[in-house]
Amino acid sequence: MKRIPVGILGATGAVGQRFVQLLENHSYFEITDLCASERSAGKSYKDVVLWRLPTKLPANAANLEVKTCEANTGAKVVFSGLDSTVAGEIEENFARAGYAVISNSKNHRMDSDVPLLIGEVNPDQIKLIEFQKKRFGGDGFIVTNPNCTTVGLAMVLKPLDEAFGVERVVMTSMQALSGAGYPGVSALDAVDNVVPYIEDEEEKVEVEPLKLLGKVYGNEVKFASFKIDAHCNRVSVRDGHTETLSIGFKKRVTTTQVTRVLKNFRGLPQKLGLPSAPKEPIVVVEEANRPQPVLDRDINGGMSIIVGRIRESNVLDINLVLLVHNTIRGAAGAAILNAELLKARGII
Amino acid sequence: MKRIPVGILGATGAVGQRFVQLLENHSYFEITDLCASERSAGKSYKDVVLWRLPTKLPANAANLEVKTCEANTGAKVVFSGLDSTVAGEIEENFARAGYAVISNSKNHRMDSDVPLLIGEVNPDQIKLIEFQKKRFGGDGFIVTNPNCTTVGLAMVLKPLDEAFGVERVVMTSMQALSGAGYPGVSALDAVDNVVPYIEDEEEKVEVEPLKLLGKVYGNEVKFASFKIDAHCNRVSVRDGHTETLSIGFKKRVTTTQVTRVLKNFRGLPQKLGLPSAPKEPIVVVEEANRPQPVLDRDINGGMSIIVGRIRESNVLDINLVLLVHNTIRGAAGAAILNAELLKARGII
Amino acid sequence: MKRIPVGILGATGAVGQRFVQLLENHSYFEITDLCASERSAGKSYKDVVLWRLPTKLPANAANLEVKTCEANTGAKVVFSGLDSTVAGEIEENFARAGYAVISNSKNHRMDSDVPLLIGEVNPDQIKLIEFQKKRFGGDGFIVTNPNCTTVGLAMVLKPLDEAFGVERVVMTSMQALSGAGYPGVSALDAVDNVVPYIEDEEEKVEVEPLKLLGKVYGNEVKFASFKIDAHCNRVSVRDGHTETLSIGFKKRVTTTQVTRVLKNFRGLPQKLGLPSAPKEPIVVVEEANRPQPVLDRDINGGMSIIVGRIRESNVLDINLVLLVHNTIRGAAGAAILNAELLKARGII
Amino acid sequence: MKRIPVGILGATGAVGQRFVQLLENHSYFEITDLCASERSAGKSYKDVVLWRLPTKLPANAANLEVKTCEANTGAKVVFSGLDSTVAGEIEENFARAGYAVISNSKNHRMDSDVPLLIGEVNPDQIKLIEFQKKRFGGDGFIVTNPNCTTVGLAMVLKPLDEAFGVERVVMTSMQALSGAGYPGVSALDAVDNVVPYIEDEEEKVEVEPLKLLGKVYGNEVKFASFKIDAHCNRVSVRDGHTETLSIGFKKRVTTTQVTRVLKNFRGLPQKLGLPSAPKEPIVVVEEANRPQPVLDRDINGGMSIIVGRIRESNVLDINLVLLVHNTIRGAAGAAILNAELLKARGII
Repeated sequence: MKRIPVGILGATGAVGQRFVQLLENHSYFEITDLCASERSAGKSYKDVVLWRLPTKLPANAANLEVKTCEANTGAKVVFSGLDSTVAGEIEENFARAGYAVISNSKNHRMDSDVPLLIGEVNPDQIKLIEFQKKRFGGDGFIVTNPNCTTVGLAMVLKPLDEAFGVERVVMTSMQALSGAGYPGVSALDAVDNVVPYIEDEEEKVEVEPLKLLGKVYGNEVKFASFKIDAHCNRVSVRDGHTETLSIGFKKRVTTTQVTRVLKNFRGLPQKLGLPSAPKEPIVVVEEANRPQPVLDRDINGGMSIIVGRIRESNVLDINLVLLVHNTIRGAAGAAILNAELLKARGII
Repeated sequence: MKRIPVGILGATGAVGQRFVQLLENHSYFEITDLCASERSAGKSYKDVVLWRLPTKLPANAANLEVKTCEANTGAKVVFSGLDSTVAGEIEENFARAGYAVISNSKNHRMDSDVPLLIGEVNPDQIKLIEFQKKRFGGDGFIVTNPNCTTVGLAMVLKPLDEAFGVERVVMTSMQALSGAGYPGVSALDAVDNVVPYIEDEEEKVEVEPLKLLGKVYGNEVKFASFKIDAHCNRVSVRDGHTETLSIGFKKRVTTTQVTRVLKNFRGLPQKLGLPSAPKEPIVVVEEANRPQPVLDRDINGGMSIIVGRIRESNVLDINLVLLVHNTIRGAAGAAILNAELLKARGII
Repeated sequence: MKRIPVGILGATGAVGQRFVQLLENHSYFEITDLCASERSAGKSYKDVVLWRLPTKLPANAANLEVKTCEANTGAKVVFSGLDSTVAGEIEENFARAGYAVISNSKNHRMDSDVPLLIGEVNPDQIKLIEFQKKRFGGDGFIVTNPNCTTVGLAMVLKPLDEAFGVERVVMTSMQALSGAGYPGVSALDAVDNVVPYIEDEEEKVEVEPLKLLGKVYGNEVKFASFKIDAHCNRVSVRDGHTETLSIGFKKRVTTTQVTRVLKNFRGLPQKLGLPSAPKEPIVVVEEANRPQPVLDRDINGGMSIIVGRIRESNVLDINLVLLVHNTIRGAAGAAILNAELLKARGII
Repeated sequence: MKRIPVGILGATGAVGQRFVQLLENHSYFEITDLCASERSAGKSYKDVVLWRLPTKLPANAANLEVKTCEANTGAKVVFSGLDSTVAGEIEENFARAGYAVISNSKNHRMDSDVPLLIGEVNPDQIKLIEFQKKRFGGDGFIVTNPNCTTVGLAMVLKPLDEAFGVERVVMTSMQALSGAGYPGVSALDAVDNVVPYIEDEEEKVEVEPLKLLGKVYGNEVKFASFKIDAHCNRVSVRDGHTETLSIGFKKRVTTTQVTRVLKNFRGLPQKLGLPSAPKEPIVVVEEANRPQPVLDRDINGGMSIIVGRIRESNVLDINLVLLVHNTIRGAAGAAILNAELLKARGII
């Protein structure tokens, strides 16, 4: 099969590097364009990237000449790992110029005709693309994936909402350092410490799931109406966000029912057998002291949500803890899975 | 003023060392007896203790000869930092033999006639001592302080409950390593990791506040009736438990009201000017990213609860974060403040 | 090819788990016997092992019934990851009973007729096995690999010694937590700390390289005669020992020569193409701030020594820094490579 | 006694904050001027400083209005914690304008007529001030203290050099995160990692001790001639640099002699009883696994060098390990002690 040429916007950053890593040897996509700031343009990728992943810099990317982020790449599909200070305009430029933009950036997530997409959760939002194309006056469009903390939350709430009707969620996250990029968090804020605040994070986590679990009516999404409290904290972990959840449902539920629903959850990516889709989008672990980031974040290549400690709640209905690999399922892997889904649907 | 001779049970352990540290130069109490296991008995304290506090081993304790934990110490008041595997029986032996036992151990906290005491929260439970004395047939009794995570929670809930009526609390803790003693947690569980479980901890945190905020009727405590969810996690912090709280009240409240109530809270230890009582039992910090363990745990000698991020809740009424120094206000310091209160009340 | 059945002694421990992990799908060996303490015997491996590696418990081992460490396993080749408190006697029992014991334990490393073997460094010590067989009166024997810190040191010194003659080495190690097993190091010794001492470690690191770089004469090894200073420290790293070296040679050398010698180094495992042999036993990195444990320890599956910062010394001749994956090349992987070499040589 | 008014250059930075902390209630000095960049000028200190020390922002500094770093402060003595990108010029401006500049910055340390001063090590370099005054044409001058890693090294080498003649030193440091300021080191470089390189650090550590232990002849210092190898590493420690040393001497020595010499070392600050001078500039600890940063860095207020593990070397003569509090004795505390010495000598 001939692979689809793709570009990476923000290719030298933390998310950009993950794109390059995860797309090495991808069966659908082949990186042909690496775009970054003017400072890097004109040089080969290996000379400008400060490669910080423990696997080797892929040979296919190493010698590509880095370009600026202008909408004239050969590839007609681009992944965006751009910083939010520039992502808004650049992504729109690409969409307007007819490109398919698969973005991990936050800027357009809440645009009414932009899908905020998780393949397992809301493939129906793909329909919004048509309205975007009209707006941009061509074939271009933007598809986004949610914030890293939201992904874990929404993946777990989706099957529970379908089965029992979610009403209320209190979530506390213990988020990994890599979520802030590199250099990101100061070591003096991380060693022997917790920072009980991440700028703009709680706002995103309290709203994005409502769009994700909403329903498409015509050219927009009617948001879900349950309530979320988010307490977001930074802890001394390299990768993997841990989230504790207390959930209230419309119906009475048992821990057995919740466990079964989570274990049995399969989405469209599983049905289509997409390359990045884990067989089990949610893995339920039994040991009392799991999931733990260092032991469990890489299960199924970092693409599954790991759930543990499902138990009755005193205040709401069910308590549990989940773990999401924030830079794989919570960022670059999420965008790649979105692109795979669009390809399978014939949209790219 | 002549100081009251006191003994330390479990003097070589982590809590025992904190007792020795905090009681150096105490204005009410003077350590005369250090009790530990048979292995240590007969040797001088400095030769058997593996002193692990960053301050010097106090000279007054260094050369005391360690005794076994038998109820024949010269001191008639003993602080107990015993491990729960042995605390139950030993503390009872001392009480039965006429000693005042001020304990940090969990074993007798839920005994119906044993005060579970925080000076600022429920000094009325001191009345229970009379019933204990009858039970033990002499002058001896046990007074306990709560679990380290509970202390922070109960201190914050007390004034809020009086003002607005607490109905529901969802709490997630990020607990320090020192809470597990030494050697305690394995470094391989701590570095680059979170463990989302602490054995027996959630059970304590969900129940102890109900006794603490209960009311004494006759010879027992009628527990408070609000509901608590506890999600207890171990994070890579040396000292200081951080707790996120979502709280629901009987009345509508504003963040301004909550802030004012917490700031103005004063208890009996403050009125009596007890040596270990901080002027402000609760310190409210304004910065968005505080409190942080490494920066704030030592405020007021580790005896204040530090509260920040008071904000509206989507699910319940108010969200906030608190920090409690787990080995000072959450353990040895709590017991010492209890003893100071008993002394001020003429009970010891 | 039919695989050779092998047993693991100490199968539930940290090194034992690495053996199980690294031998899943091994082309020469197949695990048939898992041996541990009496407490575990009679139960299936998956029920007694506290599996702590981030990869899945291999299916081939999960359901094996654990046995005690008695010399009656079906497999005639056993890998030993036994604790040194018991390894001495058990390994000797197996050798005496005719088994080939490939050991990571320290107990027999210095026995005069026991090879202390690194395939790339001193395959000639395999000759000692004949003398052992005579001693044990059968076909049994013990082969050991060195201490984890020694492995990195000896691998780098070997080609340099051949080329320039090593005279003096001052080594400071910053050793990973996993080197102490699990639970091993207390988190309170690791977080925000360095411990400048590891029991018995410096003694081993100062002597083992002399046997490794010695020469076999008849039934014993004439030790090399250079001098080593070892300063061993424990730092807050999960895996990967970093070592700084100042080295003095018999000849004058340049950094270019040293770099070339290290890069070009190949040993017998490379010539034989053994399954666990990395193509380059030593990888030289150029960046000023490398190697770093978190970025470089997994290069070539953790089987290469990573060397950086080769520069002139003011005091001796050459300074450099090296990184060795302590639980792979420094322990289980070293033993497996030894077994592969013995198989290739027809000894097992 | 009337206190001398002093200013702080770079008052909002990490070293600047330490100056403010350590000078609260100082018996000789009183802060009257806080100088920083234009961005902060005109606002009160408490509004512009991101205070990151665990003690309270001193009340005497909180409300001072911050000024720019121009040589028109009321105080005639200024402490400089300026970043090296600007320190060179600003400090010279102040000196030329008649101010006494007590600097922690590296820029002028190697100027031939600028003392590189540790009170206990080389008070004779104070004589150089006269030559500077001539150069600057007034009463102004600069006095510097060494790099944080150098301080520990030079303090230990000084008495040993006097007693036995130092010839060669191989030093490996494990340096704290605070040495890089705030935000400084990325958490992703610190957690589960060692970085075996600190820019420009080894060069300083290999040369500064030679000036410190040199001798003043006329208007310049004849450097000491021993050789130093420095291997500088960044580890996951908040405060406190640990250094391993192998030392070669001109004379044969025993560990007993070395221990005695270090324990008995006293310098001019001790003789003069300066406020910041620890009674023992070097504290020798006996336990095999000490000193450790988290347990020992605050001994004597962070102003002593802690030495342990004095033992024979195989390669040189003596091995030992030392610990220096890098932001107290290694930075702000060093400068303050220098100022105290100048005051005691009537120079300021």
